[in-house]
Amino acid sequence: MKSKEKLISAFDKGLHVCVGLDSDINKIPKHLLAFDDPVFEFNKAIIEATKDFSAAYKLNFAFYESEGIGGLSAMEKTLKYIPENIFTIADAKRGDIGNSSAMYAKSVFEHFGFDSVTLHPLMGGDSLSPFFEYEDKVHFILALTSNPGSADFEKLKLSNKKYLFQEVIKKTNDWNENVNLGIVFGATNSDELRENIDSFEDLFVLLPGVGAQGGSLEEIVKIFSEKKSRNFLVNISRALIYAGSDKYFSQACRDKLIDYNEIIYKFL
Amino acid sequence: MKSKEKLISAFDKGLHVCVGLDSDINKIPKHLLAFDDPVFEFNKAIIEATKDFSAAYKLNFAFYESEGIGGLSAMEKTLKYIPENIFTIADAKRGDIGNSSAMYAKSVFEHFGFDSVTLHPLMGGDSLSPFFEYEDKVHFILALTSNPGSADFEKLKLSNKKYLFQEVIKKTNDWNENVNLGIVFGATNSDELRENIDSFEDLFVLLPGVGAQGGSLEEIVKIFSEKKSRNFLVNISRALIYAGSDKYFSQACRDKLIDYNEIIYKFL
Repeated sequence: MKSKEKLISAFDKGLHVCVGLDSDINKIPKHLLAFDDPVFEFNKAIIEATKDFSAAYKLNFAFYESEGIGGLSAMEKTLKYIPENIFTIADAKRGDIGNSSAMYAKSVFEHFGFDSVTLHPLMGGDSLSPFFEYEDKVHFILALTSNPGSADFEKLKLSNKKYLFQEVIKKTNDWNENVNLGIVFGATNSDELRENIDSFEDLFVLLPGVGAQGGSLEEIVKIFSEKKSRNFLVNISRALIYAGSDKYFSQACRDKLIDYNEIIYKFL
Repeated sequence: MKSKEKLISAFDKGLHVCVGLDSDINKIPKHLLAFDDPVFEFNKAIIEATKDFSAAYKLNFAFYESEGIGGLSAMEKTLKYIPENIFTIADAKRGDIGNSSAMYAKSVFEHFGFDSVTLHPLMGGDSLSPFFEYEDKVHFILALTSNPGSADFEKLKLSNKKYLFQEVIKKTNDWNENVNLGIVFGATNSDELRENIDSFEDLFVLLPGVGAQGGSLEEIVKIFSEKKSRNFLVNISRALIYAGSDKYFSQACRDKLIDYNEIIYKFL
């Protein structure tokens, strides 16, 4: 199945929650530390418990890189363990000059085999096009992020009266000839979401920030349902994967995911 | 020696060229492929030949990540091989929400032991502060990059009449209370360099783009020397490390580096 089709197939099933595997060796249940690769054991259990109810899995590279080569190995094994039909996101936030971006794209898509990646647009079109050349993959451009610092640059007003994040969305639409681009739009910005959703056109929307960061799932889903758009993926990391801390942690995660899915069903 | 002191000590010696170890297994001399880790053997020879003449070494993460775990291992070994008194740059272009940035910082500074890092400012101050907390390290913020795509966002005009990259420089100055911040300013933008150099205050300036990308070393050095500023580091990657392609490749690299240094001596 092509990467984009995996995502659309999840949406068709009413699945819109992406499980964020921000797996931190200092936060996983203590009994897992007995294993050779505790982070992989944690991910395996979470995937096993949630695979029928999750729209996608997102791996935040920061958490794996911080453990060095062992962390990268846990990431590789996790990727292989995720069922082939479920969409995966490399939350790597890359973006560099052309020949370097081509190398990052090779790492994410060819070495690890992810279905999609998150990208920093700051350096412009030619820093992103080496990713876009992977036409079968999905590319999420950072537009408006979920953190308070989004006010520093993303929400600056341009001389054309638009905000920088609106210009990012406009250019992303211009670049979307293969209909495989998306944006990252923080779930903490529900007012901006309501005001800008009409400009999203065919873009996939990845919304982080629900849970630990305070974004409201109900708000988000309501806004998309009012527009009759189903092109969205809400990422939830900490609030899901650390729902439990004892030996029943993966069941606790699954139960929480089902609760989130039920909130979504109410609106769609 | 503290990271910042390594850099200042290089400047005191009149050294301003950073050797960019964008080491690509497809471009290194073929005879090295006989080794178990050809990229590390290449880096070792380049470092051995250039260590007395280089101000710093910059490792572009893209080139190492593209080779997966083997590439990361070559990066680790290279870092350990660089003499302790020479400044190192993790050209990783990271930037994420706080808890993720903290993980990236841990990877770059604690796991690999780099002296500095390059950072994407788009997500704002709270995406950078987990790096800044490493007060002994130097943090280079992307202001104006060397690629044509810098026109897409970095050169957009804001409602306050300034360009986005100028706002990045302004905020970086505001954040520079530990006098350990820098900016990345592409050497291909010599007009903008001349027009903005007075706004750089105490910031270290990392200038990529000389050589393969077409920036002129003479131009850059002239502009800094007119301002009596020595706070700059010119990165040269491909034009240096691939100066030769046979068994004398490392001597060719050293000779080229000495040529570049002589251009700098003429002006300073």
